Amino acid sequence: MKTRLAALSAWLEELGCEALLVLAPSAQDSDLAPFLPGPAHLGECLLVLPQGGEPRLGFLTPMEREEAAATGLALLTPVDLDISRWASELPDPAYFLSQLVGRALERCGVAPGRVALAGHGQTGVTVAACAALSREGWTWVPGNALMATARKRKEPAEIAGLRETSAATCRAFRAVARLLAAATVIPSDNTGELWLEGERLRVVRLRTEIARVLAEDGLEQPRSNIIAPAEEGAIPHCTGRPDRVLRAGESLIVDVFPKGRLFSDCTRTFCIGEPSEALRRGHAKVREALEEANLRAQPGIRGWEVQEAVCARFEAAGYPTPISEPGTTRGYVHNLGHGVGFEIHELPTFKKSSGAEGVLREGDVFTLEPGLYDPEERWAVRLEDLHYLSADGLEVLTPLPYDLDPRAWG
Amino acid sequence: MKTRLAALSAWLEELGCEALLVLAPSAQDSDLAPFLPGPAHLGECLLVLPQGGEPRLGFLTPMEREEAAATGLALLTPVDLDISRWASELPDPAYFLSQLVGRALERCGVAPGRVALAGHGQTGVTVAACAALSREGWTWVPGNALMATARKRKEPAEIAGLRETSAATCRAFRAVARLLAAATVIPSDNTGELWLEGERLRVVRLRTEIARVLAEDGLEQPRSNIIAPAEEGAIPHCTGRPDRVLRAGESLIVDVFPKGRLFSDCTRTFCIGEPSEALRRGHAKVREALEEANLRAQPGIRGWEVQEAVCARFEAAGYPTPISEPGTTRGYVHNLGHGVGFEIHELPTFKKSSGAEGVLREGDVFTLEPGLYDPEERWAVRLEDLHYLSADGLEVLTPLPYDLDPRAWG
Repeated sequence: MKTRLAALSAWLEELGCEALLVLAPSAQDSDLAPFLPGPAHLGECLLVLPQGGEPRLGFLTPMEREEAAATGLALLTPVDLDISRWASELPDPAYFLSQLVGRALERCGVAPGRVALAGHGQTGVTVAACAALSREGWTWVPGNALMATARKRKEPAEIAGLRETSAATCRAFRAVARLLAAATVIPSDNTGELWLEGERLRVVRLRTEIARVLAEDGLEQPRSNIIAPAEEGAIPHCTGRPDRVLRAGESLIVDVFPKGRLFSDCTRTFCIGEPSEALRRGHAKVREALEEANLRAQPGIRGWEVQEAVCARFEAAGYPTPISEPGTTRGYVHNLGHGVGFEIHELPTFKKSSGAEGVLREGDVFTLEPGLYDPEERWAVRLEDLHYLSADGLEVLTPLPYDLDPRAWG
Repeated sequence: MKTRLAALSAWLEELGCEALLVLAPSAQDSDLAPFLPGPAHLGECLLVLPQGGEPRLGFLTPMEREEAAATGLALLTPVDLDISRWASELPDPAYFLSQLVGRALERCGVAPGRVALAGHGQTGVTVAACAALSREGWTWVPGNALMATARKRKEPAEIAGLRETSAATCRAFRAVARLLAAATVIPSDNTGELWLEGERLRVVRLRTEIARVLAEDGLEQPRSNIIAPAEEGAIPHCTGRPDRVLRAGESLIVDVFPKGRLFSDCTRTFCIGEPSEALRRGHAKVREALEEANLRAQPGIRGWEVQEAVCARFEAAGYPTPISEPGTTRGYVHNLGHGVGFEIHELPTFKKSSGAEGVLREGDVFTLEPGLYDPEERWAVRLEDLHYLSADGLEVLTPLPYDLDPRAWG
């Protein structure tokens, strides 16, 4: 945390800002949570980091006193923030926010001047409050990118939490594999429909199992998940209809990204029964691509360079890629990976035109997720692992089998 | 929807605004979703409603073409918004947003002038983008409150979805009641700990059951839930530790608020075995208070008036309330209810100092949730139903038993 705070102070100095102000609808806000030692149940809150100083956490209701104190941060209490003035009123929200922000900065010894602004909020209210404060001498510098950069390198406590979330994610995958391995086809039925426990096996059954297993570890899926068979999996954006009956021989993409303190993210592709030759070959090629990406993803390399290598490999095997056929919907059609953290998509980026935010560094957490798609032939393969790039090298946080056949998962 | 759009246009005229602009991180944004006929899977998006005109939905990636078209709204495509300019670049986010907004307004025929701004986003980026646009002649009026008012009265399709979400919520409660009814105390054990299926019954077991049942209907709990026994329930803010073992004779507050398209919200209080006399009496008084609130919550009354009546009733029964003892943590300690919709807390408000936004009207959806708390004696009761105020009167969307004893739930 000291390194993160020091880096932020250095950037504030570069920007000529006296302080960083983070406005947040809750303590889970991705720009505020990186200042906290662990999860905190706070509603609307804010944080002030004076350049070269210590962060102070502001909370708005006395009921949150204990939660706020448990963070160990210096606090701005509702009394400090003069909230009681508003206790029985419904003030204009923009006026309330401008008063709150002015008071918070003043209590932190920050005089009107340049302040970097981060966090999230209601656009109209925030713009009006900041415009009012501008008339009192404050200048606002966008600070969201600062926070994105600050949280690229994970803290040890964040990695510890991420290991737990990823372990629960792996348990969810193993539970899915067990259900799929137990599913059967009725011999006289030529639809290929899968049955389990006397019912047709539908996407919703797998989704329910995943929710059950994750709930045992207190995890939610705020961004849902993807359970996409055949034609649905072939469109990477499609989440999968709950009532879709699964069939033997088709591909099934399962992409799960629950949130503990941080998000985890993992994808496997299954096939029950005999895969087509195209699916079998595609799966083998994606697995080779993931292995190559794993070898190349070392500190100092740009994510884009790894993507280029994977594209070259797919092209050599005869599959179109965004490099060989921009806009293709067949073959390899998306980015190789993305950083993961307090948001599901964070730095590092794997985009072509990136600077420092596209370079893989020690402390980064990111996915590698090559895939192949064929909307016409109605199959898709994606294999995605979550990785932590530590001083010891690349660590896979989602160590699971890659087999198409769930019975091989053991 | 026509009524909602007409009301918005009238308010825009009153404010002297040429248009409403909604910026949204996703189509689930509470200021954007009220324009859509149903759920839509869109990432970052925006909406422009010219005064007296039709809304146009802007989306940023061609992959979302089908999802956007399925809304039936007039669209601003990535081509319209000139997104391709940025395809291979990582532009400064504030500059990108200002270009995007300028282009969207221009494509909707809105010339530089006053625009009401709603939606949610990154504070620093939004403030910088709007400041840049201000220098080109745009003036920003806070529009979040407009949208809160516009979505107070629910559309028929929203109520239909809410009925389904509320029915699933009721199924989750019945599943919890079944588990609790099956729990037993070991006779020789004087701790009063409850056992189920050979294990001590912990909060996490109930939480897992709720997640499982809700997942069957595709529902998530983005704000988690409250399962709070005895001393934890006595602090309304406390969500309940997962490893806490439940005990006979203590109160157990279960508050579930899953999200489909809209949130639902319901609370029941359980006690297995013999409740204390204080808990039994408290439960009876809370149930009476809920009945009184149900009778009083009719179109035209202010939420605060209903709250006053409930407070008077509790005070007559000897319990402190926020009116008789401001700041009390014993007795009745919170607001009587809140509107529910695309956000868990919406209009109508039950606060004292409210205007039109505190008046219950036909089309409103709100909770009524009297409760009694005793942190010293370690018990709490809260009974909360979700209500829809229709032309036919007050409809309870969460029709469930109120019994403390889960065996009485049948």
